[in-house]
Amino acid sequence: MSFAKPLPAYFAKRYHGWKATAYEENKAWYRRLADEGQRPRAMVISCCDSRVHVTSIFGADQGEFFIHRNIANLVPPYEPDGEAHGTSAAVEYAVTALNVAHILVLGHSSCGGVKGCHDMCSGKAPELEEKSSFVGRWMDILRPGYDRVAGIEDEAARTRALEKEAVLVSIENLMSFPFVKEAVEAERLALHGLWHDIGNGTLEEYRPSEDRFVAV
Amino acid sequence: MSFAKPLPAYFAKRYHGWKATAYEENKAWYRRLADEGQRPRAMVISCCDSRVHVTSIFGADQGEFFIHRNIANLVPPYEPDGEAHGTSAAVEYAVTALNVAHILVLGHSSCGGVKGCHDMCSGKAPELEEKSSFVGRWMDILRPGYDRVAGIEDEAARTRALEKEAVLVSIENLMSFPFVKEAVEAERLALHGLWHDIGNGTLEEYRPSEDRFVAV
Amino acid sequence: MSFAKPLPAYFAKRYHGWKATAYEENKAWYRRLADEGQRPRAMVISCCDSRVHVTSIFGADQGEFFIHRNIANLVPPYEPDGEAHGTSAAVEYAVTALNVAHILVLGHSSCGGVKGCHDMCSGKAPELEEKSSFVGRWMDILRPGYDRVAGIEDEAARTRALEKEAVLVSIENLMSFPFVKEAVEAERLALHGLWHDIGNGTLEEYRPSEDRFVAV
Amino acid sequence: MSFAKPLPAYFAKRYHGWKATAYEENKAWYRRLADEGQRPRAMVISCCDSRVHVTSIFGADQGEFFIHRNIANLVPPYEPDGEAHGTSAAVEYAVTALNVAHILVLGHSSCGGVKGCHDMCSGKAPELEEKSSFVGRWMDILRPGYDRVAGIEDEAARTRALEKEAVLVSIENLMSFPFVKEAVEAERLALHGLWHDIGNGTLEEYRPSEDRFVAV
Repeated sequence: MSFAKPLPAYFAKRYHGWKATAYEENKAWYRRLADEGQRPRAMVISCCDSRVHVTSIFGADQGEFFIHRNIANLVPPYEPDGEAHGTSAAVEYAVTALNVAHILVLGHSSCGGVKGCHDMCSGKAPELEEKSSFVGRWMDILRPGYDRVAGIEDEAARTRALEKEAVLVSIENLMSFPFVKEAVEAERLALHGLWHDIGNGTLEEYRPSEDRFVAV
Repeated sequence: MSFAKPLPAYFAKRYHGWKATAYEENKAWYRRLADEGQRPRAMVISCCDSRVHVTSIFGADQGEFFIHRNIANLVPPYEPDGEAHGTSAAVEYAVTALNVAHILVLGHSSCGGVKGCHDMCSGKAPELEEKSSFVGRWMDILRPGYDRVAGIEDEAARTRALEKEAVLVSIENLMSFPFVKEAVEAERLALHGLWHDIGNGTLEEYRPSEDRFVAV
Repeated sequence: MSFAKPLPAYFAKRYHGWKATAYEENKAWYRRLADEGQRPRAMVISCCDSRVHVTSIFGADQGEFFIHRNIANLVPPYEPDGEAHGTSAAVEYAVTALNVAHILVLGHSSCGGVKGCHDMCSGKAPELEEKSSFVGRWMDILRPGYDRVAGIEDEAARTRALEKEAVLVSIENLMSFPFVKEAVEAERLALHGLWHDIGNGTLEEYRPSEDRFVAV
Repeated sequence: MSFAKPLPAYFAKRYHGWKATAYEENKAWYRRLADEGQRPRAMVISCCDSRVHVTSIFGADQGEFFIHRNIANLVPPYEPDGEAHGTSAAVEYAVTALNVAHILVLGHSSCGGVKGCHDMCSGKAPELEEKSSFVGRWMDILRPGYDRVAGIEDEAARTRALEKEAVLVSIENLMSFPFVKEAVEAERLALHGLWHDIGNGTLEEYRPSEDRFVAV
């Protein structure tokens, strides 16, 4: 693998700083986590976006959250077709092997993936419709959400509504997994829908009783 | 969606703490990130494992790293078959839309996904061979790596070697994406392989010149 | 300009080392910074003193901090008189063109400029009072700070207090610039006062609630 | 000073990493520097731009370079009028108090200050001509340089030539300071003109014998 490159000093310096401070202060705990395995309280499904850090927002430390991050925090429907499904594998592992008590789906403002879905579904980004577009095929998961918001006049409002649909579609799809449904019904697992505004720092949760997102 | 549940106070409390401190201290910067968009320096592909926080290890703050996390930090081979491939979508977005300068693949010790692959390939976990096992089908990506370490006598050593293969197989697969290969060859993108020991805090990088992992 | 001289090999050797390592490792990122422009998170105003490196202390890499360095990290009061004011120009550019989210004023121990101010104000360095002394006229900015510490008996303690006054006077003067005041009041900009001890490596920040400097 | 704010954790974390690594490894040297004072080999005058780090480019460590950074690395002409001149004070201190052996003036590509001067002098930025513009009045120092490049047809080439003029005008102005001229003539001090390309990492020096900049 002659194409792999050594790590730039920039990253190494950062790592050595962590090692000498956070690791050093907590090494007894880190060793226990290594020896005894993880026991996370919750799974979090959030976006890859560099501006959204679930570990910051929830003050998470090592061992607390099992975190899956993909484009637009999406969960595809249950489809046991023998192909590789990374998100479904993460959900399966969290629920059946780790027995997490919560799954949080965390959407956010200014989501590039959701914007792409919006443009694709409204005909403005035909290149995303191509078979070879991985982003386009991934965002197909959100098409049912687009249909529900397509009638909103204002584009900014429609896009924001679609960001929240990305959360709701994912929760719906989670319930299509038999082991998720079973755990939810047995009250061993609770699902939560969240949406975060990067700029003003607010966090909204989906309130099923009101069928809308409200500030936490 | 009557099955979605309100957020427990545990999470809300953590969030409110973050909002009153880190957000409050940095809100001017967060607003700019929201207004001007992200410009991350690197993409990181790491595991969902709750004990591995790339944001801690590299002292990352909001806006610095585009982070994809899946089981065992795997990248599948390039397969533009029109199906939903979450990892491939994340790589495509990072390289073609965000123009990241680096991709770091970060493996780690005691990886449950790698252990599952090991047990599956060595015949100890037949349930993972079933078509309906999402974890099994996801870990199929690592089978070529298993073949390379199967001859190692000691099981602990073999498993550790397989954890490092998860990094190397992913880097090989990254190079099968035409847009990654092109960016690497044009020196617009550099790939890096890393492996982190949770218990003792060490970080190793793959050194192509020596064809092995050495401490950073 | 026959008086300009070729660069000694000493400097060229250092540069070539950097080019072959740090530049080579990060060139994709450096090219992006060149193409897309800078977007620093903070402005730092620190001293020219060779022993104080804000880039080291804050682990800064290219693109992170807009750095102005002058004698004793001073900011003069707002004075739009049509003359050349280098510090005021730097502050104006950082706040109005780059929209930095933070300004850090970083003072330090054993500051030669502050010592000169002390000696000048206490009558021990009459040569600094001369009109032709650039250092003396520059250190005039700190005279209001000297008045506040003149009553401290011990000379070493008085000088140290004056080093901290250099930070506080500069923050006061920053607030006399209308565009700084406006940005601070709109919470688009935050000002921070710091003092660094070169010998023992400590960093203190000014805590407004306690009206004193405390260890970070 | 109720408007000063505590330091965000982001900066504090970076500092603590430095303290536990670079400081800890070098504390004997840092203590000597604190006790015995600085003895820098050279003064460097460079730009505030976040993408230009003279400490990186020349592999500088604490104690080596006395660094003044302002917009566009400019030195004004000698003008002992009793007003505060920050750059002149820094030069005076470096030459007469520290006896540095070299002064390096380091210009760079994509300089925002030089671009502003270009636009002001070519009539495209009338707002910079206003008396209240600190950036405009500071960039007046470079007007003689603009006159020398105004005839260059291509705007990109003209701007680049002006970046190099910023270095040459500053060296000319340095020679207008009697103490600089005297030290240069006595060969106690050497002046050097440099220009750095951020994107491709090259460094050029002014060669007086050829009256042009050539790669180091």
